[in-house]
Amino acid sequence: MADQIDLMRELSVKTGTKIVMVVLDGLGGLPDDVTGKTELETANIPNLNSLAANSICGLSDPVLPGITPGSGPGHLGLFGYDPLQFRIGRGVLEALGIDFDLQPADVASRGNLCTLDDRGIITDRRAGRVATEISRQIAKQLDGMEIDGVKVIVEAVKDHRLVVVFRGDGLSESVTDSDPQRVGLEPQPVVAANKASERMAEVANRFLGKTSHILSGHYPANGLLLRGFSHIPHYPGFEEIYKLDACAIASYPMYRGLAKVVGMTVVKTGLTLADEIQTLKSNFSKYNFFFLHVKATDAAGEDGDFNRKVSVLEDFDRYLPQITELKPDVMVVTGDHSTPATLGAHGWHTVPVLVFGKFCRPDQVSAFNETACIGGGLGHLPACYLMPLAMANALKLEKFGA
Amino acid sequence: MADQIDLMRELSVKTGTKIVMVVLDGLGGLPDDVTGKTELETANIPNLNSLAANSICGLSDPVLPGITPGSGPGHLGLFGYDPLQFRIGRGVLEALGIDFDLQPADVASRGNLCTLDDRGIITDRRAGRVATEISRQIAKQLDGMEIDGVKVIVEAVKDHRLVVVFRGDGLSESVTDSDPQRVGLEPQPVVAANKASERMAEVANRFLGKTSHILSGHYPANGLLLRGFSHIPHYPGFEEIYKLDACAIASYPMYRGLAKVVGMTVVKTGLTLADEIQTLKSNFSKYNFFFLHVKATDAAGEDGDFNRKVSVLEDFDRYLPQITELKPDVMVVTGDHSTPATLGAHGWHTVPVLVFGKFCRPDQVSAFNETACIGGGLGHLPACYLMPLAMANALKLEKFGA
Repeated sequence: MADQIDLMRELSVKTGTKIVMVVLDGLGGLPDDVTGKTELETANIPNLNSLAANSICGLSDPVLPGITPGSGPGHLGLFGYDPLQFRIGRGVLEALGIDFDLQPADVASRGNLCTLDDRGIITDRRAGRVATEISRQIAKQLDGMEIDGVKVIVEAVKDHRLVVVFRGDGLSESVTDSDPQRVGLEPQPVVAANKASERMAEVANRFLGKTSHILSGHYPANGLLLRGFSHIPHYPGFEEIYKLDACAIASYPMYRGLAKVVGMTVVKTGLTLADEIQTLKSNFSKYNFFFLHVKATDAAGEDGDFNRKVSVLEDFDRYLPQITELKPDVMVVTGDHSTPATLGAHGWHTVPVLVFGKFCRPDQVSAFNETACIGGGLGHLPACYLMPLAMANALKLEKFGA
Repeated sequence: MADQIDLMRELSVKTGTKIVMVVLDGLGGLPDDVTGKTELETANIPNLNSLAANSICGLSDPVLPGITPGSGPGHLGLFGYDPLQFRIGRGVLEALGIDFDLQPADVASRGNLCTLDDRGIITDRRAGRVATEISRQIAKQLDGMEIDGVKVIVEAVKDHRLVVVFRGDGLSESVTDSDPQRVGLEPQPVVAANKASERMAEVANRFLGKTSHILSGHYPANGLLLRGFSHIPHYPGFEEIYKLDACAIASYPMYRGLAKVVGMTVVKTGLTLADEIQTLKSNFSKYNFFFLHVKATDAAGEDGDFNRKVSVLEDFDRYLPQITELKPDVMVVTGDHSTPATLGAHGWHTVPVLVFGKFCRPDQVSAFNETACIGGGLGHLPACYLMPLAMANALKLEKFGA
């Protein structure tokens, strides 16, 4: 898989053809108990079905069979970076997503405002999804501490989410989370994995100590959990690997962050799908690769709201003609992973995928859903191969060997 | 994949069973715009369809999804050598393509006659695809120089293409190309990658210096570009890996050359399919593996001639009973890559494959084409695995482990 990046670098050529990759976050689903149909099978999506009928379809494995990916690995796979090899810390993702200007020596972490009971036990890891406005006020109170020469920068993201960045010399990312990732436990101390990360652990624990004091009166946001301590990674980018001028359109911060890590240009867009489509249209002449991220599918799945996920899919379907009317040479529609509403969380399940283009060899699949895609011409394939396929279909790859 | 060679070496046993691997070069296709059917779906091929009905079918990826292979990698994969690991230089392939008898110490390079303007800038890398007859005359003028004890052999291939072979002691392939692979630049000096290749670089540059003098009056073929300096590779052969006495039947030189590289015995044959089938019959008792190469499918695809490709498939279908009547224990029918007529070039698309044998576990596929093979029992598989499957079906592999 390391070879894949080298191979793309060797074979890719700059051309004028355009690729649109639409990522419907958490796309894949599971059957409803009553109807026996998945979200995609339930939704009225004539445009997606018609696109599938003219595409080559299949099912993609985000990482490996049985592996449930987070958003980072899910997207890196779609971008052609083996997620087992390229790992990004959660803190970095969160920081990049709010346009935080991370320095190479910084260690970023993801903070969750949480609710603690009077024994200090976590009762809600998201503090009732406290309003962003309140998180902002709290972030201001926590921001700017100086601990042993390390400056601690705290910024609110959305709802209960914060970014906590430690800026100073000699900080290592090799420390454990304070977030135990479940309720019923106390926040954990941050532990150094080795000698070199002891300073980081000590500074983090001192910061958390001071923080717990400041937050004590802020019920339900009376605690802070940190996870995903990480340095910004240095990956070869889309320009270098694929010779693509890539544009990312995503209304949610984390996906903008992921796009930045692989060297895409992140353009400003609004919160709705209509905004994103408008952004795609107004930038369509300026780039030759577009990553369009739709968050609402995943959010509905995470909330276990089958009907809302169906509605989001139908919404997207109504906008789809506005994308196809731009006449991209190649379109890929897929998800970064499944988020079945009946599971209410990211799943390990394969994800429906279609690749549309003049030379795509359409199969017999005429509906875009989990069952129909089993019979697709792409078969099952690792998500990592979707970028090579998109590049090939856009005639952006030279022949390998004579 | 290096493991695969070792595994075959460990498990293979010599038996009397016979395998025939038919390679219909560039087999896979794309649908015709009007009929929506591929070349295979259009062709009247009752014998192939009936063989498919009694076989296990599937789709093979020559290298990786999205990667378009040249003939070298395409065939190495079919022979069970991972094409990403086993790479053959362009010069060697070109020399093999004209039946040039390469010696182990030779360094072969591919030459392009090109057009230079009066400042020495390349204006056409192919000298207007100068006629083969003119290339032959030029090759004769350049052939036979002796530079510092190295003999330089120059032969015309086709159009603007030459093979330039350096024969002498102490020559290394580790030098850069003089061909910058684009117009608007001067030909580049050949540069040694290390101390050991300095002699090769010096001889090549001196040859190019003399050449430029000789060619100066030959506008538009007034320049020469060299690339792909390479020794003939030394791969473990079929006898060693598979314990097979392998026989190659191919009317085109490059495929004979590739077969030689993996240790097959190349037998003389004529240009037509009838000749090749006759050669198979008359050698059938003497070997236990046969590589039968059919070039015309690829040639028709490259020419963008859908109907001719259909005809070639129908031709082959008529001859197929003459192969099955020989009662090989195992037959594999596939291609080294797709060459869809609508693309007019090698493609990245998967290739239909059938494996026939007494123990092959036939599936429900009853037609040999791209769509039908999607539902085959082999699913999608890397081309590399076809040799292990052929060996297994011929009961030539022992159990792995106890």
